[in-house]
Amino acid sequence: MNGNIVVGQSGGPTAVINASVAGVYSAAKRAGIQKVYGMEHGIQGFLMEELVDLDDYLGDSMGIEILKRTPSAFLGTCRYKMPPIDGNEKVYEEIFRIMEKYNIEAMFYIGGNDSMDTIKMLSDYAKAKNKPQRFVGVPKTVDNDLPVTDHCPGYGSAAKYIATTVKEVICDNGSFGLDKPSICVVEIMGRHAGWLTAAASLCKGEDCDGPAAIYLPERIFSIDQFVKDMKEIGETRRAAVVAVSEGVKLSDGRFVCELGNVDQGTDVFGHKQLSGCGNTLSGIIAKELGYKTRAIEFSTVQRSATHLASLTDIDEAFMAGSDAVEAARDGKTGIMVTLVRDSQFPYHCTTGTYDIHEIANFEKCVPTKWITNDGINVTQDFVDYAQPLILGELAPYMVNGVPRHLVIRKN
Amino acid sequence: MNGNIVVGQSGGPTAVINASVAGVYSAAKRAGIQKVYGMEHGIQGFLMEELVDLDDYLGDSMGIEILKRTPSAFLGTCRYKMPPIDGNEKVYEEIFRIMEKYNIEAMFYIGGNDSMDTIKMLSDYAKAKNKPQRFVGVPKTVDNDLPVTDHCPGYGSAAKYIATTVKEVICDNGSFGLDKPSICVVEIMGRHAGWLTAAASLCKGEDCDGPAAIYLPERIFSIDQFVKDMKEIGETRRAAVVAVSEGVKLSDGRFVCELGNVDQGTDVFGHKQLSGCGNTLSGIIAKELGYKTRAIEFSTVQRSATHLASLTDIDEAFMAGSDAVEAARDGKTGIMVTLVRDSQFPYHCTTGTYDIHEIANFEKCVPTKWITNDGINVTQDFVDYAQPLILGELAPYMVNGVPRHLVIRKN
Repeated sequence: MNGNIVVGQSGGPTAVINASVAGVYSAAKRAGIQKVYGMEHGIQGFLMEELVDLDDYLGDSMGIEILKRTPSAFLGTCRYKMPPIDGNEKVYEEIFRIMEKYNIEAMFYIGGNDSMDTIKMLSDYAKAKNKPQRFVGVPKTVDNDLPVTDHCPGYGSAAKYIATTVKEVICDNGSFGLDKPSICVVEIMGRHAGWLTAAASLCKGEDCDGPAAIYLPERIFSIDQFVKDMKEIGETRRAAVVAVSEGVKLSDGRFVCELGNVDQGTDVFGHKQLSGCGNTLSGIIAKELGYKTRAIEFSTVQRSATHLASLTDIDEAFMAGSDAVEAARDGKTGIMVTLVRDSQFPYHCTTGTYDIHEIANFEKCVPTKWITNDGINVTQDFVDYAQPLILGELAPYMVNGVPRHLVIRKN
Repeated sequence: MNGNIVVGQSGGPTAVINASVAGVYSAAKRAGIQKVYGMEHGIQGFLMEELVDLDDYLGDSMGIEILKRTPSAFLGTCRYKMPPIDGNEKVYEEIFRIMEKYNIEAMFYIGGNDSMDTIKMLSDYAKAKNKPQRFVGVPKTVDNDLPVTDHCPGYGSAAKYIATTVKEVICDNGSFGLDKPSICVVEIMGRHAGWLTAAASLCKGEDCDGPAAIYLPERIFSIDQFVKDMKEIGETRRAAVVAVSEGVKLSDGRFVCELGNVDQGTDVFGHKQLSGCGNTLSGIIAKELGYKTRAIEFSTVQRSATHLASLTDIDEAFMAGSDAVEAARDGKTGIMVTLVRDSQFPYHCTTGTYDIHEIANFEKCVPTKWITNDGINVTQDFVDYAQPLILGELAPYMVNGVPRHLVIRKN
């Protein structure tokens, strides 16, 4: 490639999505590419020519190091769905016009399922119109639900935060000498795939029994069975933490969080209090069993806790960005970089590439065989899969007691 | 002292309450005290003779180091209120009987307001009955609301966690290029005192504007004014995070969280169980202004996040425990160790002691002069006060990707 490139971030941010930007930038500069543009707020911003020259931020190696320690999407993100090509040629033409204007030969898009659809549409359009520009996807999602790739950058860090925080919550919840059992319900992200909720199991070790139960969205959720499970746990343990996916569903297809509004009542303005499934289930435990109970929702904190990111995850996110540039230089387009686990013991990971048509809009769930028969735990196979992904730390640069971040503008 | 001592933990745990146990143990051993007992689950467990010999856990210096990195109350905690002496002499006699049985000359109790009441009652009883045993309080509370002491061990670490996490949430919330403003309401602990909520301001710096507004319980909360504030913020900023104390109250005395929640009951001290003002206020923003909004509650995570504890806080918690032993050896009783800031620039802190009668059951709030006139921020004086308390880190010992803890038994 003789021209320039552009990189963008899309979808829900993660703790290491910026490490992939750093990887794209570093590999491009190493290859002698002159300009590495960043699109602000993904393809939505690109359509408005909101471009920055990354030399302005990453020109020295300290910039790269701070970026690797910066949470969320440094360039800004978006949730923009490319329209069907038929009838919307103008949108596509505009994108290629801007690419040509800035002499951009390749676009790198860091994102999850929906973002890979953007790569698919743009590379399909380029192929149909015989355009030379290349489009390469870089995987990113805390949900870990992209197919083909062994795992997704972003997952390991969220999993490490969840395992660490669940372990700390177990310590806190277990510290009271109570007359009645105390059950803390921790609600974890992952609407359709239980990878993050399953990661709560990673806190188990010589000093911690781990969560007393783990409920994944891969299994139908039964309120009756849940109450039975909690009763049994309360009879055998003084204190317990249970991990529940935000996406657990009843057999009739309703999300458990949809049940919550009944018991929570309405507020002074007469509208229903929206609450998560953790609150709903905590209320059910209190009502049905009389136990002390509390709900904790990790919310967006679990995807933005870069202060506790996994070094393995940071390194792999960087590698995915870097190898995306190599793939484009090799002439590849319409692909996503994948992570390939070429050894399990000891863990070792390289990258590959895969046809974007086999990836966009598909979801990978936790395999049924990795869920225990009683449906409330995961097997050692899951632990063997996930544990290597949370290993290692990269100490933040602390200034005035808090981590320093790289920003385009302050928030 | 020729006899033994006992140490206990009481009330809500913190990230560094174990560092005070480590301080008591280390000073006692240095002074040649033979047995250092730990009471499991505070005075409630002591009454059942639930004692451990701390040599079994802290006998080597590695044990001390892991304990300093262990969240929550290693010994277990309780919320036990000593009954009035009149009519309950049996409870007091039982405590002194157990102390005599184990040749315990001094009791160290690490806790907040309610726990200091235990020290007051026991030392009053000892004085009335001419008993030689000494009772020394060691301050502990994330709420930072104990009087006399400059600040409380536990506060700095919770403040550091809050500042760091609010900063990460600001990055996350600000990353979307939205058509309508996005306001994230972060609910922070502190029933009557706004010290922790104010700590959200500590994330402000060259790379972060900090929270757009901070609502402390020291000021009367007005829903109308809140909606006005949010409207103004939404008109000037695309994305904002606001920090709200769980304890904000309307002019008629009702907690804001009561507007949207059924009564959750009271604890043994008559405190109302609070949760949910973030959800209530987030709902109001959505309904009244139509903004995108989200509530995040830091819950017990903010008091147990030892993985991000402040080294200053750990060291001061250790020092408070250590100096409590020195005070007892000097013959003092019916006192609490205080932290004394003997220099502000540069920050330096030593300890003192103070009559427990002037401390138990009093609360210290954020001074009015440290709250800005508009009531939605704190002044530089607050930052100067709080910032030194969050400085420094103590890297956890990571095993299999998560911090290793010291435990008496697994939870």
